[in-house]
Amino acid sequence: MQHIYGGPMGRLIEEFSRLPGIGGKSAQRLAFHIIHLPAEKAEGLADAILQAKRNVRYCSVCCNLTDQDACQICSSSKRDASTIMVVEDPRDLAAYERTGEFHGVYHVLHGAISPMHGVGPNDLTIAQLLKRLQAEEAKEIIVATNPNVEGEATALYIGKILKPMGLKVTRIAHGVPVGGDLEFVDQVTLSRALEGRREL
Amino acid sequence: MQHIYGGPMGRLIEEFSRLPGIGGKSAQRLAFHIIHLPAEKAEGLADAILQAKRNVRYCSVCCNLTDQDACQICSSSKRDASTIMVVEDPRDLAAYERTGEFHGVYHVLHGAISPMHGVGPNDLTIAQLLKRLQAEEAKEIIVATNPNVEGEATALYIGKILKPMGLKVTRIAHGVPVGGDLEFVDQVTLSRALEGRREL
Repeated sequence: MQHIYGGPMGRLIEEFSRLPGIGGKSAQRLAFHIIHLPAEKAEGLADAILQAKRNVRYCSVCCNLTDQDACQICSSSKRDASTIMVVEDPRDLAAYERTGEFHGVYHVLHGAISPMHGVGPNDLTIAQLLKRLQAEEAKEIIVATNPNVEGEATALYIGKILKPMGLKVTRIAHGVPVGGDLEFVDQVTLSRALEGRREL
Repeated sequence: MQHIYGGPMGRLIEEFSRLPGIGGKSAQRLAFHIIHLPAEKAEGLADAILQAKRNVRYCSVCCNLTDQDACQICSSSKRDASTIMVVEDPRDLAAYERTGEFHGVYHVLHGAISPMHGVGPNDLTIAQLLKRLQAEEAKEIIVATNPNVEGEATALYIGKILKPMGLKVTRIAHGVPVGGDLEFVDQVTLSRALEGRREL
């Protein structure tokens, strides 16, 4: 499609169509939208991309995405650092933050154990979690990995290595729909799952 | 949603969610995609936005979007400058270019007459078209506005002012589905409509 436009317009359409979930028609529509934006709005979008790419890194404590180290949650005095919720992904963390019912801190694994996809425990941030648990006094580890095969396997693995350390390890209740993706669960279900958590 | 992320990440999600057809979840997904891109890919996208915004302007002949003046089509020696197709939008031009069956040049109106939306003939590039027709020798004007109320009204208006000038004014055939949007019509239908054009 972009060859019809050519030049900067074609290049912009091509760049947009490389983004996930954006096809040729959507990319064309976005490019036309950009062309008709005031210059400062288009520059704002370009700058937001650059700033995010340059300044967003992993928190050295919880491995969540952040632009400050430690992240806002880890460095907050209002959060209970002795309750750590383990999630697969920053989006899952965001989903729990939206419920407003969890006042502990997080640990982001950046994935789940999946032999099918060649992801083992060493590809996740489990080593960082263990190091963290040696330094900090934790009362409870809540495992909130996704309620699917990989998430359950990861939960079992984490339970197996943390329980011998004398830690209380819990799993969010199966109020969350089995086979689903935590990111898309509604807030009430997420809250129920948090309330109904059980010892692993 | 963006307040959970905060900082550059929140800003990027916000910027993305302002784009047409991109909701909160898609914006979040795009932002995560950007964060995980290699730096040069993210910079490439930002640069494409800036370059398109800075360098894309209207062709002084046909009013299409271009980064060179006159545009590629107007300045091509392979195009028949005596046959001018009048379209509402650069996307309609692109749709006809994809058929590969039109070898004339274009005139982009940037809209259609629509009293409902307060768009009159003076809001379109009809004055530029008249000026162009005084300077150039045109054999035929093909009106390819959309086959809906606004497009038909615009076609009638153009016919009414050009025919007294002794010009041959044609309208693409109603092979194109009435009530639809030209941009989304398949290429065969667009070709049939071009073949079956009739005097206005």
